[in-house]
Amino acid sequence: MSSQPIGIFDSGLGGLTVVRELRRQLPNESIVYFGDIARLPYGTKSRSQIQRFSLENTQFLLQKGIKALVIACNSSSSAAFQLLKRRFPIPMVSVVEPAVGEALQRTKAGKVGVIGTPATIESRVYEEALRRGNSRIEVFAQSCPLFVPLVEEGWLNGGVAERVIQKYLTPLAEKKIDTLILGCTHYPLLREEIQGFFGPKVQLIDSASPTVKQLASFLERKKLLYEGRKNARFQIFTSDLPRNFIHVGERFLGEPLPPIKVVR
Amino acid sequence: MSSQPIGIFDSGLGGLTVVRELRRQLPNESIVYFGDIARLPYGTKSRSQIQRFSLENTQFLLQKGIKALVIACNSSSSAAFQLLKRRFPIPMVSVVEPAVGEALQRTKAGKVGVIGTPATIESRVYEEALRRGNSRIEVFAQSCPLFVPLVEEGWLNGGVAERVIQKYLTPLAEKKIDTLILGCTHYPLLREEIQGFFGPKVQLIDSASPTVKQLASFLERKKLLYEGRKNARFQIFTSDLPRNFIHVGERFLGEPLPPIKVVR
Repeated sequence: MSSQPIGIFDSGLGGLTVVRELRRQLPNESIVYFGDIARLPYGTKSRSQIQRFSLENTQFLLQKGIKALVIACNSSSSAAFQLLKRRFPIPMVSVVEPAVGEALQRTKAGKVGVIGTPATIESRVYEEALRRGNSRIEVFAQSCPLFVPLVEEGWLNGGVAERVIQKYLTPLAEKKIDTLILGCTHYPLLREEIQGFFGPKVQLIDSASPTVKQLASFLERKKLLYEGRKNARFQIFTSDLPRNFIHVGERFLGEPLPPIKVVR
Repeated sequence: MSSQPIGIFDSGLGGLTVVRELRRQLPNESIVYFGDIARLPYGTKSRSQIQRFSLENTQFLLQKGIKALVIACNSSSSAAFQLLKRRFPIPMVSVVEPAVGEALQRTKAGKVGVIGTPATIESRVYEEALRRGNSRIEVFAQSCPLFVPLVEEGWLNGGVAERVIQKYLTPLAEKKIDTLILGCTHYPLLREEIQGFFGPKVQLIDSASPTVKQLASFLERKKLLYEGRKNARFQIFTSDLPRNFIHVGERFLGEPLPPIKVVR
């Protein structure tokens, strides 16, 4: 048992949707979050750049004494997860594999949709992980560049969200997918509207819940879960001032943010 | 008279809407364009970072032998225009002042709207330049984060564009503006839809035309216009592979792109 914090990083504040789940499933654990706002978005950067950023972020969190790491950024998960696992001997989860594992378990038709930012979709990281898990899975991928600004504007329902969702997801509905991976940490906020579009026959998988489940089982196996009752600490660091992102961050986290510390 | 090229830079390919106008107004001039795709977006970076990037971009273009510079990026125009003017003794125009000059000339009611990315609107660069020109002008600013992805998706008309435009611009219509500055190089592609929303009583000002007019008058005054008839050259350099941006670039430019060279 260890009272050291769990570290989590993302290129921005979207990873707070994972923190929200972490605080729900593991309320006793302390958390240190790092959002690399100065260098976002990662998705358009080269693989070697993303690896360098991911190494630096991890080193920063290790200095904070973390006992485990969550890579909440899809681009880092794709470009740097293997590298970080080789380099640092602590329990580590990405947001890709847990969601893929869950989707493979749940699909009955073997037809899985994946939505994400253009960079995630072009990287084919979900597609390849799904095929590694089951080579007969049919994967239908769709990039949804308007979803992130839609979430950041807080336009989570109403006419615009409805039409954008319809426009992006109609092709997936026509393919008769029965499972859809929300491959971006922003998308859980559109979950209800997306579910409303597909109806109950399509199961939505967001990364947060399976990622935290996997982390919890790693920590349990290594006896690193903290079972004390002292108040869990939650700290947020970013690499630049988060502009007007505070209210966006609160939307992701589902509660007021603690004070944010900017580090350079 | 000089056959040297005109240099133009932007953080991405949006500045090609200015190149389009440059090729229309000054078809004999050669052009070197630099799009700093590796480091976009500039809007969320600090002022000193944007200054450093802008200096580097200008130095790169100077190595290509440019005789004049167009800063087609709103963030650079705001953070680095004065610095670049002091540092480099060539004719130089930004996209801000020409649009502001045009708006001040055209408004009759003295009520001017400005739309742009969140970073541009928060920088208040248009607002301050308008007030410097006429302290009694009323300025109504509105950031429109969904416009850039809308343009990049090519959703220039239809239900989504219409509703997004309505949502962002209704508050400006209620203020009874008679002039609207399109403060982002992406927005000219939404011009028709925006005009359709306001009707003919609101004049839309995009930067491209007044910027090129100002440049042409500088070049004329310094006898730097090229009046030869040899084929004008047009080169595009970027700092990273432009992913799937080629077709977006063609939309900005209004014609097929020349081959893009990536420099590091």
